Amino acid sequence: MPLLKYAVGVDLGGTSIKAGIADQKGKIILKHSLPTNAEQGPEAVVNQIKKCVRQLLKKNTKEIVGIGIGSPGIVKLKKGTVENPPNFPGWSKVQLGSILKKEFDLDVFVENDANAAAIGELTFGAGIDLDNFLMVTLGTGVGGGIIVNKKIFRGESGAAGEIGHVSIDHKGPKCNCGSFGCIEAYAGNNYLIQNVSRELNDHIGSLLYHYVNVDNKKLTPKLIHEAATENDAYSKSIIIELGKKIGYALTSIINLLDITNVIVGGGVAGFGELLFDSLDRGIKERVLLPSKEKITVKAAKLKNEAGIKGASALVFYSN
Amino acid sequence: MPLLKYAVGVDLGGTSIKAGIADQKGKIILKHSLPTNAEQGPEAVVNQIKKCVRQLLKKNTKEIVGIGIGSPGIVKLKKGTVENPPNFPGWSKVQLGSILKKEFDLDVFVENDANAAAIGELTFGAGIDLDNFLMVTLGTGVGGGIIVNKKIFRGESGAAGEIGHVSIDHKGPKCNCGSFGCIEAYAGNNYLIQNVSRELNDHIGSLLYHYVNVDNKKLTPKLIHEAATENDAYSKSIIIELGKKIGYALTSIINLLDITNVIVGGGVAGFGELLFDSLDRGIKERVLLPSKEKITVKAAKLKNEAGIKGASALVFYSN
Repeated sequence: MPLLKYAVGVDLGGTSIKAGIADQKGKIILKHSLPTNAEQGPEAVVNQIKKCVRQLLKKNTKEIVGIGIGSPGIVKLKKGTVENPPNFPGWSKVQLGSILKKEFDLDVFVENDANAAAIGELTFGAGIDLDNFLMVTLGTGVGGGIIVNKKIFRGESGAAGEIGHVSIDHKGPKCNCGSFGCIEAYAGNNYLIQNVSRELNDHIGSLLYHYVNVDNKKLTPKLIHEAATENDAYSKSIIIELGKKIGYALTSIINLLDITNVIVGGGVAGFGELLFDSLDRGIKERVLLPSKEKITVKAAKLKNEAGIKGASALVFYSN
Repeated sequence: MPLLKYAVGVDLGGTSIKAGIADQKGKIILKHSLPTNAEQGPEAVVNQIKKCVRQLLKKNTKEIVGIGIGSPGIVKLKKGTVENPPNFPGWSKVQLGSILKKEFDLDVFVENDANAAAIGELTFGAGIDLDNFLMVTLGTGVGGGIIVNKKIFRGESGAAGEIGHVSIDHKGPKCNCGSFGCIEAYAGNNYLIQNVSRELNDHIGSLLYHYVNVDNKKLTPKLIHEAATENDAYSKSIIIELGKKIGYALTSIINLLDITNVIVGGGVAGFGELLFDSLDRGIKERVLLPSKEKITVKAAKLKNEAGIKGASALVFYSN
């Protein structure tokens, strides 16, 4: 058996930096985490990343082939430049790749975090046997990545894959991006909670209403899932409707790209079978006939530490 | 100056086959046309194509480097197989490329007609200086082609580029494809005319109403254009609204693909500046900020014989 290779993976988030050392099969052998300190500006963030990686390398005993970083914002591959990550004040362009390469004398691969998630599934996860797939990550936002011939599709400037900002209704709800009816404006966590909050009073007989109002619990996707699991018709209808809408957005994308495999990850994917069935049906009811029989919708395999694994996958994917 | 190369281009349509010999700059030096005889089945169609090409070659004096064919339906490149072209009864799969290669002992390149139109613009037209662009053809249907790094993006099976079946409203009008709110269901010629017919009686003061009802003219895109040119407010509003909707569909596509150049061709593109301005505005009002300043929307350059030119471009593009 050949020796396993190891890489550092850094998941740069708005509140915390999660880093780890993973082997070629995506198994994490060491982990470290620090606050991002985004509010202190880019220099502080870069220092936290350095500190976090240094801590890891101190404890490490394996040979490391490179460092991978999944970051919000638009990433230019050449120098690993990260541009305007949302929620990072004062940050316009930072050559994160060049800086860390100099610091650690290792190859550094920086990618947008949604793209890194897709590359993670391609390298270690549900996409390992696929040449082409669409990756959708349902979280605070709706992230996306497009894999074509086992490579990430980056577009003109690395900004491709914004599945969350494909609109399903040009007269639909306003999205924070400035457009209307983006699938993120239905499926993004905050939007979903807002939308359900708004109509919850019309469902005072529902278990979900009872959970929220009588027990004074906060309305969350998890709570919707719990009520649905208890067979609450209203909560189930929320999940079914959501799945359908995501399916409609994917229908347009599949018609456009002729890519028929879909991998869905992120928190809301925890809605499980109810969501997946409805999403699958949403696509198959509407997609162009030649694609219909080829559609597959799968759950992402990387769950815990998907960010670290996706980031370390950037190293193996590029080697 | 090096000698110009020449290729045969065949535009296979549902009613007629238009063929020509074009030089490397897209200038057509010979033309011939025959009825398709689609209703007589695939063998009859193939015979008509052969006959048409033979006629051309008989009159030709130049050295021919290959034959290009733009065809409806899904095309498999390897053997130039054309699958299920709409409105060709009895046709499931025909290895058009192999058949014609054998017949004429020339290299044969078959592509879907919408893709051929994009390759035509890339080779001879408005896309000659672009690495990436979206091509939209507004005709009976709404065709599309996606150019990435100067190559056509074909997807898993050559069906990619169906811009017409990107939906802008999941509760919108039913499209013949089975989905709802596809941009084709607004901008395809027949849909457009149907939609306008339905509301024309609410605009009895309009010049368009007058044209249609008093002069007993048939409602056509051309008539709408004529009335708009005469400053008819209602006709102008039809064109502006149509442009916006196409712009909304393109917004989703640009967000998804990070391709910011758009070329628009086909009959309805004859609506001119009014359509183009509105389409451009529709995109810029909604697209993600990083793409906004890079958006360009241009008219296709290949107008007359675009089909023949696009088909011959397949030969030069592949050489």
